[in-house]
Amino acid sequence: MNKPAALADDALDRVAATIAARRDADPASSYVAALFAKGDDAILKKIGEEATETVMAGKDGDRARIVAEVADLWFHCLVLLARHGLGPDDIRRELARREGVSGHAEKAARR
Amino acid sequence: MNKPAALADDALDRVAATIAARRDADPASSYVAALFAKGDDAILKKIGEEATETVMAGKDGDRARIVAEVADLWFHCLVLLARHGLGPDDIRRELARREGVSGHAEKAARR
Amino acid sequence: MNKPAALADDALDRVAATIAARRDADPASSYVAALFAKGDDAILKKIGEEATETVMAGKDGDRARIVAEVADLWFHCLVLLARHGLGPDDIRRELARREGVSGHAEKAARR
Amino acid sequence: MNKPAALADDALDRVAATIAARRDADPASSYVAALFAKGDDAILKKIGEEATETVMAGKDGDRARIVAEVADLWFHCLVLLARHGLGPDDIRRELARREGVSGHAEKAARR
Repeated sequence: MNKPAALADDALDRVAATIAARRDADPASSYVAALFAKGDDAILKKIGEEATETVMAGKDGDRARIVAEVADLWFHCLVLLARHGLGPDDIRRELARREGVSGHAEKAARR
Repeated sequence: MNKPAALADDALDRVAATIAARRDADPASSYVAALFAKGDDAILKKIGEEATETVMAGKDGDRARIVAEVADLWFHCLVLLARHGLGPDDIRRELARREGVSGHAEKAARR
Repeated sequence: MNKPAALADDALDRVAATIAARRDADPASSYVAALFAKGDDAILKKIGEEATETVMAGKDGDRARIVAEVADLWFHCLVLLARHGLGPDDIRRELARREGVSGHAEKAARR
Repeated sequence: MNKPAALADDALDRVAATIAARRDADPASSYVAALFAKGDDAILKKIGEEATETVMAGKDGDRARIVAEVADLWFHCLVLLARHGLGPDDIRRELARREGVSGHAEKAARR
């Protein structure tokens, strides 16, 4: 009860909120602001890089590195999403839709 | 109260549960089982592919395609995580840890 | 003497010539024509895929597969180059330029 | 006549020779030596990066950048090949083989 809003619940949402808060910060003091200042290609380049690192960690079967690289990859996906006015809920909704669960049922289930 | 277990709460967890349930299914009838049957490289290859498609969708600034491709990318990351006995909570914990929030506080916040 | 034209000299040039000859062929009978018919994203997607496969072959240290995957990657780069009216000589010239060898000296050296 | 050996002829071969000459140089003064010193993952990571940049240049249809990025990608493939005792001739032979030209005919044609 009095459950806090979704944004406070999940690390992905908190990271998305942090990204939104920092995107217009001083690029000298914020990694996220620096990425936004460099532009779209800088964000997309990171997604390519982190995907490659995820693949290498997967080849090594190194669980700690797999976690670290997938976290890096998802973080930069969240930056890309933020850049386009999107967020983790858009991905959850898309995944739910594919499961054959309506967006409505998905939203209800999450409450 | 009587809140359903975390697995029912979030599309990522539900997808992870579905992947776990299907990994040993008949590869002829399950995409996930087919990926596991093909082996690690098949899973990792998909991560590379979906990352490239995410980059292309980002270049186009096509929001619907960005959502679809990031969902594809995360889905295959969840397959990789499952392959190594990991799941979305490991990524949430890693992202939370980087925020300077302890794993414990993160877990508590999600309840 | 009577040295055949550059196109006959090097496998990269021959592949580039083959790509140029086939790009407008029937997509049903030519892989290259099918790629061109599908459009730019199909070509770029293959570059992402083959790069991922090259990385995996490199992780395995599998020499035969490294050769096969780099050949695949370069082949699809040649398709991309052809798509933009470019060819292997543009890459050679760029590599030569970086060596501090002028394009002219590079061309002369190749005769 | 008295045509110099293939290695002197083509920018790819010259770059391969330069890589071979520098791989054991001082990592502080040579980019190639630094890559080799960092190890396999550093080399493979660059292949993933440059492939992503090639894809982005392709999306932009920016011919100068396509040339620059493909040159970067091929350069790092040459580093990977050198790392495994391979070189551009291995790729040429593989491409020639796929054309249905025997390695022997390919070698003869190049003379």
